[in-house]
Amino acid sequence: MQQAQTEISVSTQGQGLYEVTRDVDTWVSRQGVDTGLLTVFCRHTSCSLTIQENADPDVQRDMLEFFRRLVSENEPWYRHRAEGPDDMPAHIRTALTDVSVNIPVTGGRLGLGTWQGLYLFEHRHHPHHRKITLHLLGQ
Amino acid sequence: MQQAQTEISVSTQGQGLYEVTRDVDTWVSRQGVDTGLLTVFCRHTSCSLTIQENADPDVQRDMLEFFRRLVSENEPWYRHRAEGPDDMPAHIRTALTDVSVNIPVTGGRLGLGTWQGLYLFEHRHHPHHRKITLHLLGQ
Amino acid sequence: MQQAQTEISVSTQGQGLYEVTRDVDTWVSRQGVDTGLLTVFCRHTSCSLTIQENADPDVQRDMLEFFRRLVSENEPWYRHRAEGPDDMPAHIRTALTDVSVNIPVTGGRLGLGTWQGLYLFEHRHHPHHRKITLHLLGQ
Repeated sequence: MQQAQTEISVSTQGQGLYEVTRDVDTWVSRQGVDTGLLTVFCRHTSCSLTIQENADPDVQRDMLEFFRRLVSENEPWYRHRAEGPDDMPAHIRTALTDVSVNIPVTGGRLGLGTWQGLYLFEHRHHPHHRKITLHLLGQ
Repeated sequence: MQQAQTEISVSTQGQGLYEVTRDVDTWVSRQGVDTGLLTVFCRHTSCSLTIQENADPDVQRDMLEFFRRLVSENEPWYRHRAEGPDDMPAHIRTALTDVSVNIPVTGGRLGLGTWQGLYLFEHRHHPHHRKITLHLLGQ
Repeated sequence: MQQAQTEISVSTQGQGLYEVTRDVDTWVSRQGVDTGLLTVFCRHTSCSLTIQENADPDVQRDMLEFFRRLVSENEPWYRHRAEGPDDMPAHIRTALTDVSVNIPVTGGRLGLGTWQGLYLFEHRHHPHHRKITLHLLGQ
């Protein structure tokens, strides 16, 4: 049994889902692990992770719209306002989605379903450099 | 340290929570692992996983009702409609619940709390054959 | 490769986010694992886990308020009422947040981002003794 750990960067330009499936799968395929477990961890509190349909881009647009409506900006009862009107909604949207996800590795590749892609879900308007940790266990 | 990986199938007949605790626990108990970590991964984007109370069936009915109300069908702003009115809500409900969950293994069995059960959460109306990957690490 | 498993207790006095980062990090730092994966598992169905901003306490207050509004008590359609008006909302809030989270371990410590803290999210009004399982894999 062996393990490997790395960090990847994602540059975001405003709210949206940024697919990282290919980058993650490429790193996994180079580790010499046939069967194992990949853990993906987002080191931020105002963006998150989600595994979603990667075929129709409208799914990602509708997903974004749903979270904009469910967790709106400028709620009168928000107290945390110092970092801008998009910061507290970003924290809540992060809590509703994922900070860490696991993907089994099979045959040296991510064992995703046919329509699944891995996304960084950016919840803030301004550009950010985001860091994701990858941890692989297997043999 | 050793690992094992398998896939189980769940046949669903419409929206609802389908308990898989027993099937998963039986597989784990046969792997000869006393202490370890089980990862459960759902290979779909319109059904998901959740760990919930397994005592009162009303909990599962109320859970389903909550998600029907929170993420309704036929929102006028949905763009992704090609796969039916229940498909985009299914993607959103999946994002709000879990695609992967971890359960520690103790004494060769799932280390769930007294009232916890593992469920596949089907978000679509029509029958589906769903695939769940199990990955076990331990010794 | 080695593993370790333990259980920690958290005493809660009503709804709120209870930070456990220090207790968990202390336990991890004593296991002699430099690089690895920590899994945190909540053995209950009416409290949950979340990784959130640990700088401004208003974030935790707003988070709590959001979930109180999104999943209100005393919805007329709740059927599960036997354990009190705060029990079914607690189950739903648990489904919307996390029962298990993973945190990579780097240099013998939790690999959290600068602003991330690990919280037990108590969803019930009365005091409870909560149990969290920690599982560490690494070397």
